[in-house]
Amino acid sequence: MQFGRVVGSVVSTQKEASLEGLKFLILEILSAKNEPTGSHVVAIDAVGAGVEETVLFATGSSARQTKATDKRPADAVIMAIIDSWDLGGEIVFRKGE
Amino acid sequence: MQFGRVVGSVVSTQKEASLEGLKFLILEILSAKNEPTGSHVVAIDAVGAGVEETVLFATGSSARQTKATDKRPADAVIMAIIDSWDLGGEIVFRKGE
Amino acid sequence: MQFGRVVGSVVSTQKEASLEGLKFLILEILSAKNEPTGSHVVAIDAVGAGVEETVLFATGSSARQTKATDKRPADAVIMAIIDSWDLGGEIVFRKGE
Amino acid sequence: MQFGRVVGSVVSTQKEASLEGLKFLILEILSAKNEPTGSHVVAIDAVGAGVEETVLFATGSSARQTKATDKRPADAVIMAIIDSWDLGGEIVFRKGE
Amino acid sequence: MQFGRVVGSVVSTQKEASLEGLKFLILEILSAKNEPTGSHVVAIDAVGAGVEETVLFATGSSARQTKATDKRPADAVIMAIIDSWDLGGEIVFRKGE
Repeated sequence: MQFGRVVGSVVSTQKEASLEGLKFLILEILSAKNEPTGSHVVAIDAVGAGVEETVLFATGSSARQTKATDKRPADAVIMAIIDSWDLGGEIVFRKGE
Repeated sequence: MQFGRVVGSVVSTQKEASLEGLKFLILEILSAKNEPTGSHVVAIDAVGAGVEETVLFATGSSARQTKATDKRPADAVIMAIIDSWDLGGEIVFRKGE
Repeated sequence: MQFGRVVGSVVSTQKEASLEGLKFLILEILSAKNEPTGSHVVAIDAVGAGVEETVLFATGSSARQTKATDKRPADAVIMAIIDSWDLGGEIVFRKGE
Repeated sequence: MQFGRVVGSVVSTQKEASLEGLKFLILEILSAKNEPTGSHVVAIDAVGAGVEETVLFATGSSARQTKATDKRPADAVIMAIIDSWDLGGEIVFRKGE
Repeated sequence: MQFGRVVGSVVSTQKEASLEGLKFLILEILSAKNEPTGSHVVAIDAVGAGVEETVLFATGSSARQTKATDKRPADAVIMAIIDSWDLGGEIVFRKGE
């Protein structure tokens, strides 16, 4: 899994039928030090993530192991909203701070 | 998923039988700011995308989760045509503009 | 999928039994402009590709979705021999030219 | 598989239900010479790894082939704690030294 | 698949139970010209490869399509020991030379 921050969303009317009703969010990928990497990925939201939220996302076939994404053509999913994380004994992110 | 723009197509007569009738499109991969990255991928079209269309594509085993690509040796699929997307509160792409 | 050109082959006597009889070809990966990238991959041939042939190859689990590669430890497969492709309205490759 | 060292952990209350009770650890990826690469990955712990432990992790669908991760949206798993490894005839890592 | 040379091995007592008895080898990844790339991967041995042996390895879910690795959390497997390979009409590697 990698760290990401919700920075946008995608609107699509004409898509594979199984994707109807799913939310496509744009994530900026974050380093483990909570710094933006400049890279982005579009992920399906499986946990009710909102704009500016900091999340974990999974890619590949593992992205289909949620109720939202099962058997769907989705290769990235937000599977957790992060409360906090620590690195080398220091808290580097805490939600709401 | 990643952003792409349809910039070409591939013709092949001699191919794995299960791929008969499918459309191989060349996508230029776009950044989240809607800038060409210079990288390309060949994807199967599952949604009727045309030349110059801006799309989302999925890769890996997820690329086989459409009616067009099920059980086929395809590792990238166009699964949505994009109407618009926003990034950091700004619309960066809107179809037809 | 990506573009490749057959530039060599690999001989192996001692291998996983299920791979008996399969052809391991070395592909130079090509850009969408039909330029060599300097990167290579070893792929199983599922379509009767020969030396110097220009092909499409698929990777990952999708590489196992051919008769030749089903249930085998192969992560790249040649699934189409290319007749031609166009990019931005120009033909950039045509077989036999 | 790749080498990693446990350097942190992630706390998440709001996540896909199937992930309840699993430990999300942050790994710094190590080179084969046991040098930090500066890259990190978040992996599920399947073997009781602790902080500063040196481990092997697997990614992709293989990350779901443990009791802890089966059918869960996890794309990286710690599947072994390393006792030692050698490279070119030299021991480059031994646990507890 | 990619080219690799066996340059080391990993010892682990505490690991996912299904991995008991498997050999974890460290491969240096080779270019198609038989040059070391400086990158390494840890792979399960499915073919009895020894130190300094030159091999092909497969990654991802394809790495589980051997008797040794079936249903195990392994994302890279040695599936062939190479006798020789040619590139552009020249032999670039022959075993025992």
